[in-house]
Order: sequence, then C-alpha cells, then structure tokens
Amino acid sequence: MKINATRLQQHFEAMSLIGKIGETGTCRPTLTVLEKQGFELAASWMKEAGMTTRIDNFGNLVGRLEGTDPGLPVLMMGSHLDSQPYGGRFDGVAGVLCAIEVVKALNENNIKPARSIDVISFADEEGWRFNKGLFGSRGILGKLEEGELERTDKDAISRRQALIDFGCDPSKFKESEYRPGSIYCFLELHIEQGPVLDIAKKPIGVVSGISGPLWLTVKLKGMAGHAGSVPMPLRRDALLGAAEITVALNEIATQVPGNPTVGTVGTMNVFPASRNIIAEEVVFTIDLRDIDLDRRHRYEKQLMEKIESITKKHSLEYSISEDTNSAPRYCADWIKKIIHDECKALNLDAPELMSGPFHDALSLSYVCDYGMIFIRCKDGISHNPLEYSSYEDLALGAEVMYGTVLKILDK
Amino acid sequence: MKINATRLQQHFEAMSLIGKIGETGTCRPTLTVLEKQGFELAASWMKEAGMTTRIDNFGNLVGRLEGTDPGLPVLMMGSHLDSQPYGGRFDGVAGVLCAIEVVKALNENNIKPARSIDVISFADEEGWRFNKGLFGSRGILGKLEEGELERTDKDAISRRQALIDFGCDPSKFKESEYRPGSIYCFLELHIEQGPVLDIAKKPIGVVSGISGPLWLTVKLKGMAGHAGSVPMPLRRDALLGAAEITVALNEIATQVPGNPTVGTVGTMNVFPASRNIIAEEVVFTIDLRDIDLDRRHRYEKQLMEKIESITKKHSLEYSISEDTNSAPRYCADWIKKIIHDECKALNLDAPELMSGPFHDALSLSYVCDYGMIFIRCKDGISHNPLEYSSYEDLALGAEVMYGTVLKILDK
Repeated sequence: MKINATRLQQHFEAMSLIGKIGETGTCRPTLTVLEKQGFELAASWMKEAGMTTRIDNFGNLVGRLEGTDPGLPVLMMGSHLDSQPYGGRFDGVAGVLCAIEVVKALNENNIKPARSIDVISFADEEGWRFNKGLFGSRGILGKLEEGELERTDKDAISRRQALIDFGCDPSKFKESEYRPGSIYCFLELHIEQGPVLDIAKKPIGVVSGISGPLWLTVKLKGMAGHAGSVPMPLRRDALLGAAEITVALNEIATQVPGNPTVGTVGTMNVFPASRNIIAEEVVFTIDLRDIDLDRRHRYEKQLMEKIESITKKHSLEYSISEDTNSAPRYCADWIKKIIHDECKALNLDAPELMSGPFHDALSLSYVCDYGMIFIRCKDGISHNPLEYSSYEDLALGAEVMYGTVLKILDK
Repeated sequence: MKINATRLQQHFEAMSLIGKIGETGTCRPTLTVLEKQGFELAASWMKEAGMTTRIDNFGNLVGRLEGTDPGLPVLMMGSHLDSQPYGGRFDGVAGVLCAIEVVKALNENNIKPARSIDVISFADEEGWRFNKGLFGSRGILGKLEEGELERTDKDAISRRQALIDFGCDPSKFKESEYRPGSIYCFLELHIEQGPVLDIAKKPIGVVSGISGPLWLTVKLKGMAGHAGSVPMPLRRDALLGAAEITVALNEIATQVPGNPTVGTVGTMNVFPASRNIIAEEVVFTIDLRDIDLDRRHRYEKQLMEKIESITKKHSLEYSISEDTNSAPRYCADWIKKIIHDECKALNLDAPELMSGPFHDALSLSYVCDYGMIFIRCKDGISHNPLEYSSYEDLALGAEVMYGTVLKILDK
C-alpha cells in the first residue's frame, strides 16, 4: 500500500475525540469551537503533508499543495468535518482525512505534481444548524442565495454572526471564490450511508452520480367531524387520503423490482390530531429520487394522477408545493473509469451505485467533472452514533483514491 | 306547545354570552369562573321553575323539583354547561336548558309530580382540561378512578385544586353521591353532533344507544435510514406500515355499505419526522365503534390480522395498547317508545339512530334506564364555533321531552 493505514486510523481516532458524544458518536456543529478544533487538528496534518492552510471567508478549511505549475486548474478533493447533531465519526470526516492521507503519501513518495491540489473541509455541509446545507461548497462557486446570511439557528444566532465569530469576513466572500475554470476536477470519498455495499459484501463502490430528489409538500384539507358520529360515506378524512397517497407512492416507486427508484413519506402532520376527531388537515412530505430523470418524471406524473383521484374520492382539497426539484448529477465517465481501474488493480470488485444523499460534490458538479468513491458502512446506518466503517475499508478507499489522483495528475 | 319557545331561545342567547368567542363560539371550561357564571344563570332559571339548587362536591349544578313523595327514586335529566375550548353554543347546553324549560312548563301547568325531578349540569363532561371526561356524572355514582384528583391541566393545576377553588370539598364526595336505586331513569337531550338528521331533513331523532368505542394506540417500530440511499426492498418504513393499516381500517369499517360501523385514525406521530429520513417509529390511534358489539369484535379481529400481516411484510415491530373498550349501551325500549309516541303526536317522523359520541347518559346507563333525544345540527358540525341547531328544532325537542316526562311521571 502506498498510503499509511495505521496513520490514517490514528487520524480518525484523534478526530473522533473532538465533539465526541457517548462511546462512538459525534456532535461537531458548523462554525463552532468544536469545528475550529477539528480544523486545527486537520490543518496540522495538512502541514505535515506539505500543504499550506487557511480558513476562508465561508468557513472552509483549505489546504494547498502548491504545484510546480500553479497556473493550472487545481485538482480539488474534500468533504466536511461538521457533523449531524447526533451523528457518527465517519460521515464527511472520511473524505477529508483520506484526501489528506493521499497528499501525505504523494509527499512521502516525492511526487511533485504540476497542478496544485486543494484539500477542503467544506463549511456546513450538513445544513441542520441554519436549515440549509452545502454552504461552503456553494460559497466558493458564488452560488449562495439571497438571505442565507440572515438564517438563524435555534438560539437566534444568524449565519452572518456565526461566520464573524468564527473569524470569517462575510464582506469579503468574493476573495474566497474560485474563478470559473480554476478547478480541474473534484474527488470526494464518502461513506455510503446506505446498505448496498454492506449487503453485497464489497468494501468499495464507484459512484455513478448523485440522484436528484424531487421534494414535494402536500397539504390535504377535508372536514373535521366526530369520529363516533359521521358515517363513513359522508367523511372527508384528510388522514385517510394521506395514507392512501403514501401507499400509492410506495407502489409507484416499487413497480419495477430492482430499479433504484426510491420514494419516501417521512413526515405527516395532522390537525386537529385528536383521537376521536376526523382529521381536517394533513401536511406531509414526499421525497422521490431516481438516477433516471425520465423515469422520475414519469413516476411523478403517476403520483399526480393518484393524488388527483384519491382526493377526489374523499372530497379533499389539495395543494402541492415543490420545495426541491434537482436533476441527477452524473459522475464523469473518465474519472469513474480510473476509479474502476484502480479498484481492479487492488483486486476489488467494486460495484457502481448511485448516491441518494447529497454531498459537497453536488455543488462542484456544476463547475467541473467529478468522481466519488463510496466506503461500505455497517447496515447502511448513518446520521447516527452507530455509524461504522472499518479502518481496513477506509484504508482501501484511500489507496484507491491515491491511485486515482496519480492517474489524474498524469493526464 | 306546552313549552315556551321564546323563553327557551332567550335562555340560549343569554347563556351564549358567557365564554363567548368570536360571533358564535363558546369557550367555557369546567371548574372556572365562566362555568360558575353559567351555573348562576342556569340556577336562576331553575329557581324560577320552582326548583331548589346547589353545587355539589363534584362541581355539578343540581336543581331539584321536590316531588310530593320525595322517597321515590328521582327522574333525572341533564347534560353539561362546560364546552370544548373552541366549541359551540349548543353542545351540552341544549340538554340543560331544555330540561329546565320542561320543569318550568310543568310548573306553569300546575303539575306537581309525586317523584322528585333533578336537573343536573354535570361537571366536566368534555374532559379536555384534565384529559378525562364525564367527571360529574361518574362522580355522583361513585365511579371515579384512582388518581383522578391528581390529574393536572396545562397550567399544572390539579383537578383537586380546581375543585377546591370552585368551592367544592373533595373530602366530602360521599355526601354528593346518589345511593343505589335512588334514580328512576335518566333523560338527556343533545345535539346530534353528526350529519344524519340534517341529511335526512328530520329535526328530531330517537337515540337507540351509545356505541361503544374501542380505542387502541398502535406503535410501529422500523429502522430509520436515509430516504435517498436505502433501496425500497430493504426498508423497514414505519410510516408506510401505519398508512397501510389506516387504509385497512377504512376497508374493514366500510365492508358492508350502509352499516353504522365507523373506524378512524385521528392522530399519527412520526419519529424522527425528517423529510429525507425513513420513519423509524410511528404512533397512531384507532377508534372503532359499532352499535353491534359482535360485529365490532369481528372487525377488531380482522384489524389485528391486518396489523400482523402488514408489520410482517415491512419487518416492523409493533405494540398495541387498549385505552378504552366500551360496550354499546342501549337506551331503554320503554323510554324509546314513549319518545317515539311523543314525536308522532307532534307529527314528527323521528328516525332512530345511534350515538357515536359519549354523553353523560353513558355514565347513568350503568345504574338506571335511560333515553336520549337528538336534535339535528347543521352539516353535523360540532366541537366548533360553527355548530348550529335552530331554535325551532330545539323547541320541538323540548316539547317532545316535556311529553316524555309527563308519561314517565304517570307510570
């Protein structure tokens, strides 16, 4: 192996102490003292790997290995060190620490690339503190939206204030942006956060793309009434309608067994929510994803027809708001091929799979080619202290990434 | 007419001012200054009708028209003056004011019954303040349960404290109980709180009984996971399971068109309730009612089989708690016959229908024969400021009740 598995494991173990909760959990919110401690530790490893480091005005930690031809577009790698409030040790951390390990291995092997390499721990990938994520990776691309600095956390601290407290200067965002064409490609290693690799007993997966979610909020309005006195045929039961739509979404998403389509109702708010009152209003969310956008559009149409017929049957009014409608973002074929080749060289049979969740790579996909390496995680558990990937798998992933970087640098 | 419709309307209008919300709503919680004002007003009308009045230790307002043979078991009538927090002008009030009007009419017609007549406004029929209702009607029968006085409202005031503040003495409950055999029968007039009479265009209904609700709380436990990354066949989605059970309950309750069975899921609590996380735990309530107890038992069995098969299909764990399991309580045939006869005498075609909701009559049904008269209410709306019954219908109901009381007194 070119990378040092023991050192990599030590880095994971050291990082896991910052914001540690319980035996195996992590709570390291963005723009906090804990994240700053994580940055300082990661920056120390970056420096050991020959990089210069800085925290930019978006709150990203940026390590740079200066190339011999610094005018070339950079090879960028990274992920994030912020965690979910009740999160694990690997989500995000894996992508940062493995990228640092790759640069350290380049350094140890006396490889001096022509193009610079930037390793970034992106600010606020998770998005729960201010209810909007991918902040740092959108920031460097000039893709922040109106009002993002005014978003507040549960303690009424605005993102602007949190940035200033962190030492950033929101009036100087421009200075921290990457100009168009300055990024050659982006690589991200991440734990799968799903069970596919674990079930297939494969340590490494090659990501085909990040599937685009369609996020809908559906509101059904019926008529409250006493659960004991309104005969069934006269009811306008909003919760029954919501239940039928939930069942219909599942039927639509599973109509072709084996397809990667996923459809989820994850929230359901009932009014008045009394056990003996027929529900008058129900608001629920729909999450529909597919790597095949045409199919997702067809399924969306089927869903709309079902919502129409179910609400008609129960005399419900309905309204639908579209909160997110992202297209899938495919990984670059040439990068996928390199990753596949590196896996084969290590005798790894690495399946190709899509990523349901977002990652920082999603932001980068709009400005450059990108590739992603997935690491198996136990039972697919993530966003939970029980999240677990073995250090052996992580080292394999770093090794695949190292080989991939070498090939990209050679291009 | 023997009763005075104008006076009755005036009483409704006067009572509606106490705890008035908006144009037509009422908020008159139990054991409050507002209920006390309502009691004082009702007591003044009771006295005008020749009754003595008292507030007993349960917080019931009791008016008594002393009979010429006070040793006879009493004819009891009543309902309640407490309201839902966002309630209407007629629920409960109708039964109290019409009963007072009946006694006033007896008085005006110089009828001096042998047996005493008690008109009661029962304390806390609604039950929302301390999350348990029918307090006063259970109290006078010695049927309170362990811990009822320790129940607290949202401001942490215990029922015991509220009773004391109202002027009651919880240590003297025994003095306010009716001894076994001391109640001859019970009559309650109430708005239907459902749409049957309104749709049938009939002002008055004869109640056949109060259907017994089965109240279950079902808890499903699956496995949380990212909505984007867990393939459909690997999911253990608790909300999908709850939706399928909700649909199944509806199919079971409606399997024989025209049957009075009703089944309702009125609440559904989802954890963790994030739009992109598969629900790990869902707790929801089931309300199943039928006037035919055998049929309800059969349907309950069908429901259990469905819960078993649906949870098995989705690999969910489940637990069910039975919160209430009441048998239907039928009205006395002889009282129903009198009410029917009185309706016919007034040229009213009064359908017989069951009561889905509880009423104070449910408590009384365990110690004496009872009868109930239903008044049509617009669109079946109740527990809502929009609740509406016409003064014409209410007067007709009071007239039917007057005739019924005369016949009962004659027995």
